[in-house]
Amino acid sequence: MPNRLRFDVAYDGLPFAGWQSQKNGNTIQDLLENSFAAVTRAKVRVHGAGRTDAGVHALAQTAHADLPHRTLTPARWTDALNASLPPTIRVLRCRYVTAAFHARFSAIGKIYRYRIWNARILPPLEYGRTWHVPADLDFDLMMTEAEAFVGEHEFAAFSANRGKPVEDTVRTIQSVRMRQKGSCVTIEFAGNGFLYKMVRLMVGALVECGRGKAPAGLIRERLRIDNRSSACGKFVAPAAGLFLVRVRY
Amino acid sequence: MPNRLRFDVAYDGLPFAGWQSQKNGNTIQDLLENSFAAVTRAKVRVHGAGRTDAGVHALAQTAHADLPHRTLTPARWTDALNASLPPTIRVLRCRYVTAAFHARFSAIGKIYRYRIWNARILPPLEYGRTWHVPADLDFDLMMTEAEAFVGEHEFAAFSANRGKPVEDTVRTIQSVRMRQKGSCVTIEFAGNGFLYKMVRLMVGALVECGRGKAPAGLIRERLRIDNRSSACGKFVAPAAGLFLVRVRY
Repeated sequence: MPNRLRFDVAYDGLPFAGWQSQKNGNTIQDLLENSFAAVTRAKVRVHGAGRTDAGVHALAQTAHADLPHRTLTPARWTDALNASLPPTIRVLRCRYVTAAFHARFSAIGKIYRYRIWNARILPPLEYGRTWHVPADLDFDLMMTEAEAFVGEHEFAAFSANRGKPVEDTVRTIQSVRMRQKGSCVTIEFAGNGFLYKMVRLMVGALVECGRGKAPAGLIRERLRIDNRSSACGKFVAPAAGLFLVRVRY
Repeated sequence: MPNRLRFDVAYDGLPFAGWQSQKNGNTIQDLLENSFAAVTRAKVRVHGAGRTDAGVHALAQTAHADLPHRTLTPARWTDALNASLPPTIRVLRCRYVTAAFHARFSAIGKIYRYRIWNARILPPLEYGRTWHVPADLDFDLMMTEAEAFVGEHEFAAFSANRGKPVEDTVRTIQSVRMRQKGSCVTIEFAGNGFLYKMVRLMVGALVECGRGKAPAGLIRERLRIDNRSSACGKFVAPAAGLFLVRVRY
């Protein structure tokens, strides 16, 4: 039986080169693995529920790691990891789980949030945390269009190619919630899974609609196309506005 | 008649060495003066309502500058300055004023906000924007103690020495408002003027009280003392939690 530790981790995406381990080492996974190594004096591999791109934030990413021993309680692990992590990465909670749990394969869904700042000037404290869209947006139209995402669809037209072809591009979106509070527009997506850059492509399309740059029914039209190549007219919303809210198991 | 431009500027304090011009140049004043120089091709001096320390944020600091000409409208000035400023400094609005207006000497008051994060773990996105206080705080006691600040008082015990003695250490606090929302405690001070580090010393004292480390009535006691030396038992709250909300004229 492995000493499998499950943990939730939050991070500010701005200072890092994304989740996945890289040669230069400035990724969330690398920094977590360094922290585990500092405590265990062994190489520990961290498995995340999903990879977030450079600049994407997490309020609670879930991950697991198989440890060489159980000398620390989960609460002590939280403190020990945070002690050697930068303040822009925080382990929120830990617990031991059985080998039946896998951060990626056990996940049944994820919730993502996207923030748009819809005003002429972006406040300095919003920099790196929102997509600045100074143009007027038609929120009612955006909300109507967003409804088209809900349900099981072929999302090939809302995915980017990561180099290798994806077998199955059918996903189910359980809900899309849009709120406006002052200049801040928040769009929250709950789904059983998300393709590469899917949220950013969905938000890009919604903003295209909101700016009046796209015909009504654009989203429904695109969802009908089984387009596995990099679709024309795609607009990817920037990474800075995207937050992984939590992973569902 | 000078071409005096009045403007409001917001900034994230974290990446900068404070407001006031310094040799290394990484200050808000220096960066604003560089932006004016880029447009006017002349040396322009920027006068702020007050100096904020390194790490202190501003939602709206007010400043003025005397320009060599009026070739730009105020709206164009806003865009022109922002074009050469980093995204963590934003000019919010500009207007031409008469020489009767002086950002510092015309100010009749300021509003400051201080944010405390009262939980075991500081969320990564709150780093640099709050004071992380993991210890339990007695909010009711803090609110009672905070009331003592309201009114005209001798604030010598709540000021730090900047090297030169301050003549007059009497100030009037019009209001202190404390709110708690989840783990975030916000304390907002409105006053006719603030001595050096006064807000951070007031917040430090309130947290001392809230943690049960100080006798009840501490604030009232300290306000009675005309202590111009660096007072014993002073605790300065960190710069990161402090926000200049606006300057009143």
